Amino acid sequence: MIDTLRRYIPVFDWGAGYNRETFSNDMIAAVIVTIMLIPQSLAYALLAGLPPEAGIYASIVPIILYAIFGTSRALAVGPVAVVSLLTASAVGQVAEAGTAGYAVAALTLALLSGGFLLALGLFRLGFLANFLSHPVIAGFITASGILIATSQLKHILGVEAHGHTLIEMVGSLLSHLTQLSVVTLIIGAATTAFLFWVRKGLKPRLLKAGLSPKLADVATKAGPVAAVVVTTLATWAFGLSGWGNVAVVGEVPQSLPPLTLPGFAPELIRQLAIPAILISIIGFVESVSVAQTLAAKKRQRIDPNQELIGLGAANIGAAFTGGYPVTGGFARSVVNFDAGAETPAAGAFTAIGLAIAAVALTPLVFFLPKATLAATIIVAVLSLVDFSILKKTWAYSKSDFAAVTATILLTLGMGVEIGVASGVVLSVLLHLYKTSAPHVAEVGLVPGTEHFRNINRHKVETDPTLLTLRVDESLYFVNARFLEDLVQDRIAADCPIRNVVLMFPAVNEVDYSALESLEAINHRLTDLGIGFHLSEVKGPVMDRLKETHFLKELNGKVFLSQYQAWTELTQDSRLKVAE
Amino acid sequence: MIDTLRRYIPVFDWGAGYNRETFSNDMIAAVIVTIMLIPQSLAYALLAGLPPEAGIYASIVPIILYAIFGTSRALAVGPVAVVSLLTASAVGQVAEAGTAGYAVAALTLALLSGGFLLALGLFRLGFLANFLSHPVIAGFITASGILIATSQLKHILGVEAHGHTLIEMVGSLLSHLTQLSVVTLIIGAATTAFLFWVRKGLKPRLLKAGLSPKLADVATKAGPVAAVVVTTLATWAFGLSGWGNVAVVGEVPQSLPPLTLPGFAPELIRQLAIPAILISIIGFVESVSVAQTLAAKKRQRIDPNQELIGLGAANIGAAFTGGYPVTGGFARSVVNFDAGAETPAAGAFTAIGLAIAAVALTPLVFFLPKATLAATIIVAVLSLVDFSILKKTWAYSKSDFAAVTATILLTLGMGVEIGVASGVVLSVLLHLYKTSAPHVAEVGLVPGTEHFRNINRHKVETDPTLLTLRVDESLYFVNARFLEDLVQDRIAADCPIRNVVLMFPAVNEVDYSALESLEAINHRLTDLGIGFHLSEVKGPVMDRLKETHFLKELNGKVFLSQYQAWTELTQDSRLKVAE
Repeated sequence: MIDTLRRYIPVFDWGAGYNRETFSNDMIAAVIVTIMLIPQSLAYALLAGLPPEAGIYASIVPIILYAIFGTSRALAVGPVAVVSLLTASAVGQVAEAGTAGYAVAALTLALLSGGFLLALGLFRLGFLANFLSHPVIAGFITASGILIATSQLKHILGVEAHGHTLIEMVGSLLSHLTQLSVVTLIIGAATTAFLFWVRKGLKPRLLKAGLSPKLADVATKAGPVAAVVVTTLATWAFGLSGWGNVAVVGEVPQSLPPLTLPGFAPELIRQLAIPAILISIIGFVESVSVAQTLAAKKRQRIDPNQELIGLGAANIGAAFTGGYPVTGGFARSVVNFDAGAETPAAGAFTAIGLAIAAVALTPLVFFLPKATLAATIIVAVLSLVDFSILKKTWAYSKSDFAAVTATILLTLGMGVEIGVASGVVLSVLLHLYKTSAPHVAEVGLVPGTEHFRNINRHKVETDPTLLTLRVDESLYFVNARFLEDLVQDRIAADCPIRNVVLMFPAVNEVDYSALESLEAINHRLTDLGIGFHLSEVKGPVMDRLKETHFLKELNGKVFLSQYQAWTELTQDSRLKVAE
Repeated sequence: MIDTLRRYIPVFDWGAGYNRETFSNDMIAAVIVTIMLIPQSLAYALLAGLPPEAGIYASIVPIILYAIFGTSRALAVGPVAVVSLLTASAVGQVAEAGTAGYAVAALTLALLSGGFLLALGLFRLGFLANFLSHPVIAGFITASGILIATSQLKHILGVEAHGHTLIEMVGSLLSHLTQLSVVTLIIGAATTAFLFWVRKGLKPRLLKAGLSPKLADVATKAGPVAAVVVTTLATWAFGLSGWGNVAVVGEVPQSLPPLTLPGFAPELIRQLAIPAILISIIGFVESVSVAQTLAAKKRQRIDPNQELIGLGAANIGAAFTGGYPVTGGFARSVVNFDAGAETPAAGAFTAIGLAIAAVALTPLVFFLPKATLAATIIVAVLSLVDFSILKKTWAYSKSDFAAVTATILLTLGMGVEIGVASGVVLSVLLHLYKTSAPHVAEVGLVPGTEHFRNINRHKVETDPTLLTLRVDESLYFVNARFLEDLVQDRIAADCPIRNVVLMFPAVNEVDYSALESLEAINHRLTDLGIGFHLSEVKGPVMDRLKETHFLKELNGKVFLSQYQAWTELTQDSRLKVAE
């Protein structure tokens, strides 16, 4: 009972050993993370097309629920860039940004996504996330970074613009360029430049000036906070929102997260179901990667299926407290970890900090320019853009290169959902294609040894009456017919062959289709009076074959080693030579 | 030039050696096949919901085009049961049976299907057909056989009925049962019983009576022709179509295949595109299986990509000459082969025979009862129904069983298209699932040898500081994270480990995702001061790895054999023991 509780509600596990020292470490981390999260949450809400407070609400209850159900000690859950973009794309298809329906749809999306994650976790289906290959993820993140940065240009330029693909966005920006607000552009451009400088130029200088790497890091992370304070003060002091046409965040309700109800209309659920699945899987992959990286540093373990439950609970929490889909974010988690967080309690303290901010500090952001928030997003996401994956995959594997290229182009050209879905489908198809024509080597005996090697790569002995093919792939429906064809080709082309041996040391599976192909090969060779044998069949494969009629019908033998096969099957030829 | 011609137009190949003997053999086969095809073509047209002559037209020009472009010497192309059912299902969704729109849609379907096959062939994408696993095909054929037989019951009962799923069909039959025509039922039931008897009872008797097997076979195949003749004469003589309410074929135009134009409306093409792809692939798989089986018997070869071109041309021909989608049929091809056909010219002679029938014999089928045709279909397709695949796959592989069960249930319950598509998707997912958690064995040294075996299956030597894992699967995105997790689990659980070796003798591929996982494992183990090594890496995998930074960053070594790894990495422990 206690064990079950500890497994599904890890708080009972780490909570038992909680003491004053862990408390103070967690507290320090929480303060640092809270300061960083305030502008970030506002910015991501803006990216998702939601009112700014939604970003803060999405960081409070979800963090607490994740602290109870999640297994990572340092993961910080809340709105992240890619999921915010996906939310904007999904919800934008069912409601107009800024309307009440839009906010309700975002809640529904969080609920569906949370329910889906929870179900995956309870049924222990976390492995499904593995269908996203690394190159597809890398390509998707890069393309998303570009899309997100482009989507924020309208706030920097102070114009209206729409669109979910790169071309739509750029077209819309260009057509609205006459509305350009020069003051907004100055604020946006200056903030962007400042933040880039903080990231690239400030840290080395601080380190040179003798600051500890940890302090230098905290100072760097405080850059966005400084930008927020300065631009807000400037806008307020010079009345820029009036004569300068600078769009500001405006009134944000001073309130704890409200109790909200997602929409349950069947049509809404139908429209949001697929995007919710996509958001769940992408969010889960991002979150679990971060959690694993951090856990590995302390030789800790995370349980992917329990992570699904934790993230599911967090999203359901977001759905009922005015938030939108959340996941474990890279930047916030690393800051939390570096700041010394030891348990999920650090997250809970962060939630308290944000709750205080939601109640007390929201009036202070009235004059915060949207351009400043856009600048923080642009600088954050451009660090995600990394085209080196193209070069790396090109050098290593053309099919991975094809998958990543398609993902990037389709994400940019047709939107995030089609982009990532195509990437997944293409990876699977390319994998199947690769295994559909497996490497099969004709082998011969290395003279003086009992080893067999590819006749095209090595000087080996062969016998004209014996054809030995080493199959370097599991046999299953996609390549079953290939093997049939190959054997038939060789037999049709080469008449003196009396025996065929298939070497199976690298065959890890023979599925039912492949079994039927082996039977077909056996029938054909039997008809032609040619012996058909197997050699070096693995234990698990042999166990399966033993349960079938195939071994009884096989006109030849199953040899434990290829050398035995060689010795026995070439006896006649050798005798003839001896004569 | 000549070689290219011969490759793409095989007629130039076999045509050169054509002589009087092959001519007479081909001619005899053609006469037998023609007699068998007349009732079959009429019946399949009925199944497809088309006028009876469409079945004959679909057997004329397509056969000639296949004879020119196809590679199989004995394949007989024309309407087949499963493709006729698929045609009825697809065209039934866009037009009402019996209308002009219905016939035009069938032509369009043939054109799309032909174009798709041709494109696959020209781009040499024949391997795509391998995505249909044998169990999925077997399940689909069985379920289709049941659906087809059920769909024909209405003709046997002489009632109206509709529907594309088993439940719809049975429900519709029951609700129309009051229209029952007793005379029709008698004709239908008697014909069905007679044909079953011919199939099961007649042949053994003829053989006993001293007939040669070949003659007995021909006599058996003539059963449907006899049934057609007798029931037509009876209907005409007793005027059954009048007072008995027996539905007859009626007037069939006396004409050579007409020149027809498929519909090109974008909406029609959009609706029929997916069904056309399905029909193409299923038709191709059926055709190529038959062609390969027959070719193998004579040690001949067929080229799957050229087969696609042949079948593509045949379908395009059908589209412009009043037919509907065609493919190589099992029954007709086997008859053709058994009757001694030596070249595709036999097909061309069959086409001439059918053309003569279309011009001269069609008035004779005016009084042919539809119930007779339905009986021939029922008896033909019930021989396709074979539930033994369930038992066989259950015994051999539960995941193949799952795929075949889903295919059967979904085909019966939701129609042919959903059924086969679900089967394919499920096979792929199950395959990916199986490889997502590959077999990884912890191995130790078999005492006194240089061999390493699973520590759970064998008595082996191990060393507490050395963890050796043999990976029995190619590493790619679906299982990349699994390996990462597994290594981390073992490291977190077992503290004295100083070195980890991954044995790769069965790893046929390491894709980019898996490469990144190996890099991640290397980083983590390096952080923990644990050595990371590989052993027995295959040539092609090693070639790839050499092009990356991984081997430079690897904190350990790549050992040619696991025994070398063991000797070197357990040196310290053995020294300690020696002290």
